[in-house]
Amino acid sequence: VIDPTDRGLTLGDGLFETLLWEGGLRHAPAHLARLAAGCATLGLPAPDAARAVRLMEEAVTQAGLSAARAAVRLTLTAGRGGRGLDRPAELDCQLFATVAPAPKPATPARLILSGVRRNEGSPASRLKTLAYLDNVLARGEARRRGVDEAVMLNNAGHLACAAAANLFWVDEAGALNTPSLGCGALAGITRARVLAAAEVREVAAPPEALTNARAVFLSNSLIGLRPVAAVEGRALVPWDGLPALERALA
Amino acid sequence: VIDPTDRGLTLGDGLFETLLWEGGLRHAPAHLARLAAGCATLGLPAPDAARAVRLMEEAVTQAGLSAARAAVRLTLTAGRGGRGLDRPAELDCQLFATVAPAPKPATPARLILSGVRRNEGSPASRLKTLAYLDNVLARGEARRRGVDEAVMLNNAGHLACAAAANLFWVDEAGALNTPSLGCGALAGITRARVLAAAEVREVAAPPEALTNARAVFLSNSLIGLRPVAAVEGRALVPWDGLPALERALA
Repeated sequence: VIDPTDRGLTLGDGLFETLLWEGGLRHAPAHLARLAAGCATLGLPAPDAARAVRLMEEAVTQAGLSAARAAVRLTLTAGRGGRGLDRPAELDCQLFATVAPAPKPATPARLILSGVRRNEGSPASRLKTLAYLDNVLARGEARRRGVDEAVMLNNAGHLACAAAANLFWVDEAGALNTPSLGCGALAGITRARVLAAAEVREVAAPPEALTNARAVFLSNSLIGLRPVAAVEGRALVPWDGLPALERALA
Repeated sequence: VIDPTDRGLTLGDGLFETLLWEGGLRHAPAHLARLAAGCATLGLPAPDAARAVRLMEEAVTQAGLSAARAAVRLTLTAGRGGRGLDRPAELDCQLFATVAPAPKPATPARLILSGVRRNEGSPASRLKTLAYLDNVLARGEARRRGVDEAVMLNNAGHLACAAAANLFWVDEAGALNTPSLGCGALAGITRARVLAAAEVREVAAPPEALTNARAVFLSNSLIGLRPVAAVEGRALVPWDGLPALERALA
């Protein structure tokens, strides 16, 4: 139960993490390290990692989803108080976990390029914050156009990421690319794992890089790596290097 | 009492209005019209205006602030549900009002230029949304630097607005200017009233326009018009046209 004056609700002042549960929490240390780094950026105290893990595990048990493939969401708010935008002198941060079933998508994703831009000039664009409305709007646009997910460009016109995933493509020369964090890409946990497992160029690229790509795929903690079947209606074939990359991440 | 899965909390999916109470709600029709326009942009149903007014008036009475100068905040959330970013088929929007004393600032404002950019490429930048974290970060930067308020540039490097106010300046030729909405400026109610009462140029301008200005002032529904005493440490004298503009708005 959340107070109606909680700054997480009134201002989006807080952070979240979405972890995969598959027989246990996957990559919890990486998620909690990212949360702590986000807290440092926002000026919030990082939650105790052991307590966060306990909250998430209890939430899975209480939801009866221990045997399922599930999404565990950990939410941290800046808590009540303050006058308008100013935070109070003493923070009253709230931490809680929710769980939902998360079957792995069975089909490749179809993408559009969204008209909603990513704010590359805010540190929040690299973080999973409670101020996720631009992503909601981009996804809504994708749904209205009958597809699965939206690619967001930044204000400079460069590719950033999808509404709820990072973006990779194989270019005409066969090289693997992803938007650099400076483009406003979310600092994804799976993105970092791909960068550690394969040779990937972090680039500032126009949308044509995607529409001219040999292959495109998405990454996030819940879907892992998901091939893309079409961008703006242009059909793409799956990348033959994807199964090997998935094995390298397993 | 808000559900922890309310999309207003988890994603910033919702809107708010801040109205001045001074013997009654000030400019309620304009605020509710802006809220309805914001709902249309976000794809949310606009709340019933009579119910919204009743909620706000009841909140003032219950807070014992009927005789005070007070800030009334009306918050609309997209409600519970949906999977991740996707909204549920049936929305469960929540509407509530909170009240706090709001004395008029007695001193002119001191400003800095924030490093947090405004997202001119999102329709949300023109709206008062629950995803207000960039504004929180900009204000926090101002407080750390010992001043009152932060000016936000957009990603093109043009002036947009302050963290919680619109921005006006008198240029060297004596003309009154404000950033255009296309720069990512909030569509302020007081801003619109100033534009109706005076000749104002809506412009895309670099930060030098502000640091070279003859005079600068801020506007919002709570402060009305507030003179600016300094921008980045450079002292400014109050604009001698400000009292006449205030009378024209009264």
